[in-house]
Amino acid sequence: MSVVESYRLERDPLGEVCVPKTAYYGPQTARALQNFSISGIPISHFPQLIRALGMVKKACARANMTLGNLPAEKAGWIEAACDDVVAGRLDAEFPLDVFQGGAGTSTNMNVNEVIANRALDLQGLPLGQYSDIHPNNDVNLAQSTNDVYPTAIRLAILFSYVDLSDELTKLADALDEKATEFRDVLKLGRTQLQDAVPMTLGQEFAAFAATLREDVERLSELSLFLKEINLGGTAIGTGINTDRRYAEIAITELSAISGLSLKSASNLVEACWDTGAFVLFSGMLKRTATKLSKICSDLRLLSSGPRGGLNEINLPPLQPGSSIMPGKVNPVIPEVVNQVAFQIIGADLTITMAAEAGQLQLNVMEPVITYNILQSLSLLKNAVVALRSKCVTGISANVDQCRAHLESSTAVATALTPIIGYERAADLAKLVLLSGSTIREVMASQADITEDLVRVAADPAALTAPSARHS
Amino acid sequence: MSVVESYRLERDPLGEVCVPKTAYYGPQTARALQNFSISGIPISHFPQLIRALGMVKKACARANMTLGNLPAEKAGWIEAACDDVVAGRLDAEFPLDVFQGGAGTSTNMNVNEVIANRALDLQGLPLGQYSDIHPNNDVNLAQSTNDVYPTAIRLAILFSYVDLSDELTKLADALDEKATEFRDVLKLGRTQLQDAVPMTLGQEFAAFAATLREDVERLSELSLFLKEINLGGTAIGTGINTDRRYAEIAITELSAISGLSLKSASNLVEACWDTGAFVLFSGMLKRTATKLSKICSDLRLLSSGPRGGLNEINLPPLQPGSSIMPGKVNPVIPEVVNQVAFQIIGADLTITMAAEAGQLQLNVMEPVITYNILQSLSLLKNAVVALRSKCVTGISANVDQCRAHLESSTAVATALTPIIGYERAADLAKLVLLSGSTIREVMASQADITEDLVRVAADPAALTAPSARHS
Amino acid sequence: MSVVESYRLERDPLGEVCVPKTAYYGPQTARALQNFSISGIPISHFPQLIRALGMVKKACARANMTLGNLPAEKAGWIEAACDDVVAGRLDAEFPLDVFQGGAGTSTNMNVNEVIANRALDLQGLPLGQYSDIHPNNDVNLAQSTNDVYPTAIRLAILFSYVDLSDELTKLADALDEKATEFRDVLKLGRTQLQDAVPMTLGQEFAAFAATLREDVERLSELSLFLKEINLGGTAIGTGINTDRRYAEIAITELSAISGLSLKSASNLVEACWDTGAFVLFSGMLKRTATKLSKICSDLRLLSSGPRGGLNEINLPPLQPGSSIMPGKVNPVIPEVVNQVAFQIIGADLTITMAAEAGQLQLNVMEPVITYNILQSLSLLKNAVVALRSKCVTGISANVDQCRAHLESSTAVATALTPIIGYERAADLAKLVLLSGSTIREVMASQADITEDLVRVAADPAALTAPSARHS
Amino acid sequence: MSVVESYRLERDPLGEVCVPKTAYYGPQTARALQNFSISGIPISHFPQLIRALGMVKKACARANMTLGNLPAEKAGWIEAACDDVVAGRLDAEFPLDVFQGGAGTSTNMNVNEVIANRALDLQGLPLGQYSDIHPNNDVNLAQSTNDVYPTAIRLAILFSYVDLSDELTKLADALDEKATEFRDVLKLGRTQLQDAVPMTLGQEFAAFAATLREDVERLSELSLFLKEINLGGTAIGTGINTDRRYAEIAITELSAISGLSLKSASNLVEACWDTGAFVLFSGMLKRTATKLSKICSDLRLLSSGPRGGLNEINLPPLQPGSSIMPGKVNPVIPEVVNQVAFQIIGADLTITMAAEAGQLQLNVMEPVITYNILQSLSLLKNAVVALRSKCVTGISANVDQCRAHLESSTAVATALTPIIGYERAADLAKLVLLSGSTIREVMASQADITEDLVRVAADPAALTAPSARHS
Repeated sequence: MSVVESYRLERDPLGEVCVPKTAYYGPQTARALQNFSISGIPISHFPQLIRALGMVKKACARANMTLGNLPAEKAGWIEAACDDVVAGRLDAEFPLDVFQGGAGTSTNMNVNEVIANRALDLQGLPLGQYSDIHPNNDVNLAQSTNDVYPTAIRLAILFSYVDLSDELTKLADALDEKATEFRDVLKLGRTQLQDAVPMTLGQEFAAFAATLREDVERLSELSLFLKEINLGGTAIGTGINTDRRYAEIAITELSAISGLSLKSASNLVEACWDTGAFVLFSGMLKRTATKLSKICSDLRLLSSGPRGGLNEINLPPLQPGSSIMPGKVNPVIPEVVNQVAFQIIGADLTITMAAEAGQLQLNVMEPVITYNILQSLSLLKNAVVALRSKCVTGISANVDQCRAHLESSTAVATALTPIIGYERAADLAKLVLLSGSTIREVMASQADITEDLVRVAADPAALTAPSARHS
Repeated sequence: MSVVESYRLERDPLGEVCVPKTAYYGPQTARALQNFSISGIPISHFPQLIRALGMVKKACARANMTLGNLPAEKAGWIEAACDDVVAGRLDAEFPLDVFQGGAGTSTNMNVNEVIANRALDLQGLPLGQYSDIHPNNDVNLAQSTNDVYPTAIRLAILFSYVDLSDELTKLADALDEKATEFRDVLKLGRTQLQDAVPMTLGQEFAAFAATLREDVERLSELSLFLKEINLGGTAIGTGINTDRRYAEIAITELSAISGLSLKSASNLVEACWDTGAFVLFSGMLKRTATKLSKICSDLRLLSSGPRGGLNEINLPPLQPGSSIMPGKVNPVIPEVVNQVAFQIIGADLTITMAAEAGQLQLNVMEPVITYNILQSLSLLKNAVVALRSKCVTGISANVDQCRAHLESSTAVATALTPIIGYERAADLAKLVLLSGSTIREVMASQADITEDLVRVAADPAALTAPSARHS
Repeated sequence: MSVVESYRLERDPLGEVCVPKTAYYGPQTARALQNFSISGIPISHFPQLIRALGMVKKACARANMTLGNLPAEKAGWIEAACDDVVAGRLDAEFPLDVFQGGAGTSTNMNVNEVIANRALDLQGLPLGQYSDIHPNNDVNLAQSTNDVYPTAIRLAILFSYVDLSDELTKLADALDEKATEFRDVLKLGRTQLQDAVPMTLGQEFAAFAATLREDVERLSELSLFLKEINLGGTAIGTGINTDRRYAEIAITELSAISGLSLKSASNLVEACWDTGAFVLFSGMLKRTATKLSKICSDLRLLSSGPRGGLNEINLPPLQPGSSIMPGKVNPVIPEVVNQVAFQIIGADLTITMAAEAGQLQLNVMEPVITYNILQSLSLLKNAVVALRSKCVTGISANVDQCRAHLESSTAVATALTPIIGYERAADLAKLVLLSGSTIREVMASQADITEDLVRVAADPAALTAPSARHS
Repeated sequence: MSVVESYRLERDPLGEVCVPKTAYYGPQTARALQNFSISGIPISHFPQLIRALGMVKKACARANMTLGNLPAEKAGWIEAACDDVVAGRLDAEFPLDVFQGGAGTSTNMNVNEVIANRALDLQGLPLGQYSDIHPNNDVNLAQSTNDVYPTAIRLAILFSYVDLSDELTKLADALDEKATEFRDVLKLGRTQLQDAVPMTLGQEFAAFAATLREDVERLSELSLFLKEINLGGTAIGTGINTDRRYAEIAITELSAISGLSLKSASNLVEACWDTGAFVLFSGMLKRTATKLSKICSDLRLLSSGPRGGLNEINLPPLQPGSSIMPGKVNPVIPEVVNQVAFQIIGADLTITMAAEAGQLQLNVMEPVITYNILQSLSLLKNAVVALRSKCVTGISANVDQCRAHLESSTAVATALTPIIGYERAADLAKLVLLSGSTIREVMASQADITEDLVRVAADPAALTAPSARHS
């Protein structure tokens, strides 16, 4: 087949364009493909986004039909084409770069064109015969990129967030299982990397679980704000080219199609340019990332050694750790999670700058926001899966080492202060460190230290919770 | 008075220290003053923090008394001293640098020492006679820096946030007043800085108000999480050196003293090291900053000119704009708000990095978190006050210029597409731009354009909202 | 072929691993593939990195042969295999995720295994018969991931940087051509978006070119620091398992192979963990990104309109701008460049956090640094190409509009101040703005304004440069 | 004195303003004081900035006199006033907030007014009698904020940078002294927190010194670009209101006055809006901050314990570490340096965003850039001083602990691989870890391990450098 034979000629308001003969996409997509060759990552890299766009188009078609602005038959063909998009059957037709100018217009036109041509094809009509079904006049009827695209992004985030949330919960469960397993492992608590007071390894892991469960809740709460959409606002939120009843019908349809309880933003002019929901949600992802990073740094610290480190826990060995050092095994999963966290924090900055750069009635930077937030959700989910399945579930405790660190330290001295005072307790601690003896030995050598006190020091387990002693 | 005469000699576990003779603070504060000479900004730069610390100490003293661990008389003197701290009467006694190592220990000891010495002084006892009232054994009883300091930070943020929130509401009110004033000023809406469709200047300002009101709500919701405190967790959240009933009593007392509905964090070990509430709250401040920055960029754009810019609104002239260009007046308030926004976004990064750097049972970076979040709250509040009082309330509209931009544009062409289709409407738009005529003139010259259509184009006001036309 | 038939069984120190039967990579790569399923982006997404790794391996093989530690025949086969890697013929054998723990060990072992197996295959020996050529003992001889990987990253950056630099120069050339084209287009200079003083459009574009040329120079200077490598430092920079002469020979070989003038870092222990060269180079990329973003924001501002904006220049129309607004054309290329800039600024943050997180003798976060710096170089280059070829070369000036803005403004008033003083000039400017007249008209009406002064005002072109007038 | 009596009435182009009776500053400063109440930090918080502004004004006055545009007598009085500013005698007259709109115009007018009034006062003329010496017409002659302010910022940074650089060198010296002191302390090198290979503590500290010395060099190189100034470009870089010879003369004068080899930027239009030199310099400060933070994290890790940590070094105890835990001493100086590093990284982001936000002929965000870069320089210098004087110089080694970690580990196994191969060495390492024996004991028990090999293992000191063994 010659070059000429493999293309069809189409027109848009700027003139003629060559489109691959069998492509469902049309002239504006073809132009955008030429214009944006930036990252090589296609928008279909995020299938949830394509799925969401298909849903929005379907909801609008139904609303237009209900209002009598789109003939039922035409609406039917469009809906059928939308179903194909939603089902992911046409993902290959969305080749546009995730980096694009135009505030998502190219993505929206990509969808409009694919749906129009798919709808033509389903009827047996030739591709490009837009007089029958038109990308703008029919598929995009009563819509603008500026309400369709932000709505679809929100849906895509909501779809992706569920996976992350589920995986975070599973990770918290795995950490809690370890907390139960380690509940009697006494160890030295540390603040500022310095020996502090007794705790259990179970308490340490339970705290990891608790902090992530909090984030599952916060993500859930903040995701609600993504359910406020601006569909029906069209070009700048004034609803130009829509019927008064349209927005409500379209949103009701979209709720039904997506299974999400969507509602209209209260001020559509604001909603057209505002990206605050993304900034806040990304800020929350950033928080989850910092927590995961902190947990992973702790796991690396606690498993450091095996001889020259804390060595209180063992991470499951996954791969030889060094090309030169035999026998070395590294904490590779926590390390990769740290890195993912840094990536997400960087992405949050990109999103923030994009949000800040909005001008007048639109934020033209939404494509880079979309890319980063969807990428962060994906990276974070994969990191969480790896952390649970390849690391946390296989962690074991070095009970003796935990105990040894505790007993050689002055951790119990704190419990003496209510009785003998801070200064005297500090003296004992100093004696321990200077003499190289244990605190129990030092206490036994001091005239003013009663047996009661020695008993306090001998039972660090009792010091891992508030007591009834002081009442 | 000689140098010797102006100091008193005190001891702490590291040895002897010179303390200014009349200072309420003591040896550990004196050491910390020498150790941390970093920013020159004292912790008393944030009086809410000092006030909060005083409240926490008072609540703990009451709890200790209730539990019988602190004699009523001693507790009484301590409470009296706390009242002085809370009232701001002793702010000068808190000279420590906001940048400090030790996770806030120096700040906590500063408070302990000031309260101890103030309590001694109130009784007529000499400063430094800690055998009567001891900074650690009495004032800090059943407390650790690690529960006192994070609790006090939260209170300080909550106190400061109220001011910001109030001022944001006032700014939204001022913007809404302008929205009402400008509700009939027809103008050109713009997306991507390109002429789009008609709107009113009132809609533009109402959107500004709406976006800030959302943030007032979000800040309020997120501030709730700051009411979860770890008081009673002491050193690492295990509650070492506390009675089982202590935490609840102390938190109840603190709620009463502060007027805030505080509650205990559900996992105190986690709460001891977790800084997630700060990260999320700072992320929210960052969002508010981006919104304010966007609004201010818009105000600068809309008031650009006066002859070579959009010139659709006038900002009140505040000061001559140039040392060399006579008659120039600049949008100085929006400009300073932009800069404050950048500062807050930078501060959020500092906070995020500090949060990520937590290790094991504590986040030692809390002082830099504290500084940045309190500083951001203060800067943001001041910026919001300036924006309202020195800019927004004085804005006027250039009605004719708004109208002229609209009428010379092709903004109404969008409304024609449902009737004549996207391509034909695009043809008309092209004709307008090429010919230099108005769209009404062009339409009048075209055979296929009916009078109905011309009427649509002649009434841009009708295009600023959804219509009944399409039903 | 059954599943069993399609794999071969190999061993590494952790036990047995299934490897695809025909894969050149081996057991450690197979493990890492399972461990790191994070981003889906393979390391071969950056072919320069694979090429660089091949070069390093070849240089080391030659050094080892020279020193008599690797038999000449074995070295020969290894070099031949390296040549295939360098030529990009084996890119498909590098499937590992760019996000990985282990500080690049997996990437290094991927290369070691591919080279070993390729060398075996070239000899007709079976894959996996490492007794003949061993990934660690032979290919990785006298090497560690910790010197090989940082060296290879530097080479990969240096290869990529050249492309960026060339494209930046071409963009500066294109801007300078426009500067020449527009050298006589008089226009209004603006500061703070307010009318300032006269300039030419040529001066505006020449400044764009100049600022980018500076960055070409700075990038070139800073790239020099990437030529300091730590090859020969092995595991922690102490050079364990190397001969005293090895490092120098290996670096000399690598310089010859790569065509780059490489030299040894002066302190190899430091060079093993230090990532400062990346931080500084990334900081420089960030600077270039901010400049490009500023230029693009200016292009969008200057081309805003066409009726309701500045409209002083026209960008070439590339695609219809809106799915709903007929005739709208948007500045899509500058918009995408802005977004790329935000991405690069975010990437710089990720790199910075990764650099800060180094611990003791190594920075384990290098993979995320590598990914971000190579990705930024690629994005930036593509953005620069698009900006030149699809935007800048097609820009035209709206000469009349430029002139009209200038003449209606008070821009020439500044030139009057040396003669009539700042206050009197300010009075005239105020009169212009209040009356709606031009400044020339106003001047003509004022008794104290001489004809000389009117002449000054009548020749704005003379005000676009210093003058001889004041001498 | 009544309120009326304590003020004088002045005028500027916007009308009348009250100015404190004895203030040297005038009406525009008074306005700006009211307009900008943001941070409470006055510009005189950075005395180098005031000093720099005084120098610029003096240089311009001399240039104007030379060119005959300013009478010698007037120039003399202005220069005398400038000298007072430069000497810091009038710092209290610069009360403006560091956060300000107007791109520094208020700061420039503050200087113009103070110099004018000081010059009047020196002559015995009344304050405010600007007909004799005028802030704009005389002091600001042939100047604009837009060339004066960026020039002065650069000088202020250059002055401040010298202090930082000197202190970094002193810190590197102190670290090198420790490197010498610890040169024979054998210890375990660690990568990824896991036991790696032998090194000396001296090597570890020498690397710290080396990395900082590199930064001293880089800072010095990058500071050169700050010596390119735009003085003479006036309002937008076109040099309006200047004589052709003016820029060169003014810059020559300024070089002489400041002692810095300044030169003119090659494109003054670009130099008027470009902030690239700040972005790059700040990026370099960020790099230094990450290095200091890494070093401090290492110091905290190496001194962790004393019983439950690595405990290889001791930091000098500076203050009791805990309000509740007796005897605890914390690494407070490294901790505060970490926090300063985070602050500087946040500041770099603020600077970057401000740089990106430049528009057309000026970057109006320069005040926030100025504040952050000067603040970062100051914080960083103070942190470096503290790190040296209160921490590094007092560090001691725990030689026995260092040795014990090394000997109990498998660190020497790496040295066996060239002889017995990676797999066999890995087997030995595994045996060590499983058996709890030392590697020497394990080796002694293996038939294939020769005495030569045992000797290798017995001399870890020989493994801290490349060897002649392999030749």
